[in-house]
Amino acid sequence: MAQTVTPPRGMRDFLPADKARREHALGIIRASYAAHGFDEIETPVMEDSARLHSGLGGDNEKLAFAVMKRGLGPDDLAAAAASGDTLALADLGLRFDLTVPLARFYATHRAALPGVFRSIQIAPVWRAERPQKGRYRQFMQCDIDIIGEAGQLAEIELIGATAGTLDALGLSGCSIRINDRRILSALLAHWGVAETLFERALITIDKLDKIGAAGVATELAGLGIAADGIADTLDGIANAGWELLHGVTPPPAWLDQQAYAELLALRAALPDVELVFDPTLVRGMGYYTGTIFEIAHPDLGYSLGGGGRYDGMIGRFLGNDVPACGFSIGFERIVDLLPEDAASTADAVVIVHEKDAAPTELMALKSQLVASGTRVRLEKRSKNLKALLERAEADGFTRFALLGQGVTDAGALEFKALGG
Amino acid sequence: MAQTVTPPRGMRDFLPADKARREHALGIIRASYAAHGFDEIETPVMEDSARLHSGLGGDNEKLAFAVMKRGLGPDDLAAAAASGDTLALADLGLRFDLTVPLARFYATHRAALPGVFRSIQIAPVWRAERPQKGRYRQFMQCDIDIIGEAGQLAEIELIGATAGTLDALGLSGCSIRINDRRILSALLAHWGVAETLFERALITIDKLDKIGAAGVATELAGLGIAADGIADTLDGIANAGWELLHGVTPPPAWLDQQAYAELLALRAALPDVELVFDPTLVRGMGYYTGTIFEIAHPDLGYSLGGGGRYDGMIGRFLGNDVPACGFSIGFERIVDLLPEDAASTADAVVIVHEKDAAPTELMALKSQLVASGTRVRLEKRSKNLKALLERAEADGFTRFALLGQGVTDAGALEFKALGG
Repeated sequence: MAQTVTPPRGMRDFLPADKARREHALGIIRASYAAHGFDEIETPVMEDSARLHSGLGGDNEKLAFAVMKRGLGPDDLAAAAASGDTLALADLGLRFDLTVPLARFYATHRAALPGVFRSIQIAPVWRAERPQKGRYRQFMQCDIDIIGEAGQLAEIELIGATAGTLDALGLSGCSIRINDRRILSALLAHWGVAETLFERALITIDKLDKIGAAGVATELAGLGIAADGIADTLDGIANAGWELLHGVTPPPAWLDQQAYAELLALRAALPDVELVFDPTLVRGMGYYTGTIFEIAHPDLGYSLGGGGRYDGMIGRFLGNDVPACGFSIGFERIVDLLPEDAASTADAVVIVHEKDAAPTELMALKSQLVASGTRVRLEKRSKNLKALLERAEADGFTRFALLGQGVTDAGALEFKALGG
Repeated sequence: MAQTVTPPRGMRDFLPADKARREHALGIIRASYAAHGFDEIETPVMEDSARLHSGLGGDNEKLAFAVMKRGLGPDDLAAAAASGDTLALADLGLRFDLTVPLARFYATHRAALPGVFRSIQIAPVWRAERPQKGRYRQFMQCDIDIIGEAGQLAEIELIGATAGTLDALGLSGCSIRINDRRILSALLAHWGVAETLFERALITIDKLDKIGAAGVATELAGLGIAADGIADTLDGIANAGWELLHGVTPPPAWLDQQAYAELLALRAALPDVELVFDPTLVRGMGYYTGTIFEIAHPDLGYSLGGGGRYDGMIGRFLGNDVPACGFSIGFERIVDLLPEDAASTADAVVIVHEKDAAPTELMALKSQLVASGTRVRLEKRSKNLKALLERAEADGFTRFALLGQGVTDAGALEFKALGG
């Protein structure tokens, strides 16, 4: 029977060593974001179905887990069977990202929040995706967002806080790829693409890494987009990022001048951050309106997080526009890159006692040590002492003592280093 | 439109001040439990429906939120409508406690865990209860459990860790009420109650606080339990706790001698904990088999947490018995009792700048201060500077500086205390 007992498909348990590593990393992230002036909030894991399916979540809306209404009767089921509408049975759903809940939170609490609100959200989200390596149905997101700041200071603070947090985590070598949706729009306009085709064209350009410039040109032609030299232009600008960002070469005439000037200002304001201008960077979500960014690591073929400006979205539940910009780090990917022993720093001791040791004396010893700031585990002596000590070491303990007869004071214990 | 935007019924958002207080308290709880030798684990928020509804959760099973199967077609709905079985549409559910997931976790990972496993679980649970004051549909639980220890050391370590954690939180004056299910069983046997009626009789005795000894006797009579002197016995033992626990009066003949001896040993092993023996304490869950305990606070009519030994349960998914004992603190109740300003300790400054201040210079100043360990918020100067500073103070900031023209070094900022 035991072998069939598993967590639900695509979801994970975390054993002590993993959980400690995750909490250690989350503590660093939380403290770093707070130092950069952001404030943590929390929303329930569920939102009303209508809100989750209001079009703000893009393709992720299809992946929402639906939560059934309570107290459904046969009539409700029959009605749903007749209409084929399963969502009629579900009034709530599990959030698939932290952006839709943030928009709802802001609409609910706007009057109680500062004019410029810098939020931290560190919380799990759920997506009913096909489970595969590195993709889970429950995973953590760490988002920071600035709501109410139309100026570029928002992008600067977000990228600064993110770069600072990657440093704090000890993740070296990361760079931030940047672009602007206005630059992509100007490129498409330059090719004579109709605005109605922009979104589909961007989806194609997003595949540049995979299918190459010629592949993109072919796919665009399939959409009826067939300007001269698409492949050459893509190749050219994809490689011109450094020169353009450092003003070495003059920008092409079609480049959106306002957006370009802002990228240069971004570079100037973040001298310690490795910024890489990639004029072909798209990012998936349809709601971005300005600057977009993504974390790149030299050893990895995938990004470690990203974000951008999405001015139209937060105000949706309020009925008016509110400027907004956000940056999310991919916690699940990042935590796997951190050094193994990052979590264990405290003094932690194991007291090995005989099976018949008096609980009163054991507890007195333990209390003394805990009071002095030491983490304490009591272990009954087993036949295989070596295995017991190896496990304790693996669990992050640093010292051990064998409890002798009549020892009732922690000062009389003789500690030895584990693994020494 | 704005006034209709709320979180789902019975669930809460947490704004920055509340969230900071909660995280601060959780940090203390986590560190204290770890110091006492417990190890934190995590399980997914969902479990398979069959496991959630296997009878381990008692009445709480009825309160589980059900998560719909993905990809249901009209046929599935029609079949459910015909059978009236809504659960046939839901293969997953949100956990209603942390004990059922722990039993499943232990069955999954037993081979990788120490022989005596001391777990911490700090995580939300969900119950579709009728929302009311102090009762929420999503709330945090903080559980510690010891699995694999049949001896009394488990109870002693659990109560010691819990008392130490209440101290660490600054919650003074709490006591731990203790009893043993074997004592309750012995009392019922003494009255000649058939074992098949034990559970219903315990539910009645659990109402002693509300309906008094005479009320309990009347209700028991309604169950056909009508021994002589029930009300007198209940009154007598409810008041004899102190004398019995301190061995001042000899125990009545019916008292389970083994359980009584263990309570005396518990008192001896925990000299710093305020233990109160209440021979009528029941606690709701049917799965308890031995010692039970509950946190009492002198100013409150409700408990702040509780637990006990439940030897039959953890092994259910394994097919064999595994000794287990757990203690849960009521985080939502406890966090409301903590002092208001517990969370803010760090140096935190606000830099007030003109609307047209250069982002590059602002970011340079901010980076310097963050690097020196200071939390920094940038604020655009508004017409009402006083209101701006008051809000910053309320948000936990301690100092502010008005940014003058051309100041580019943090050392040149003149800080003043907020609220001074």
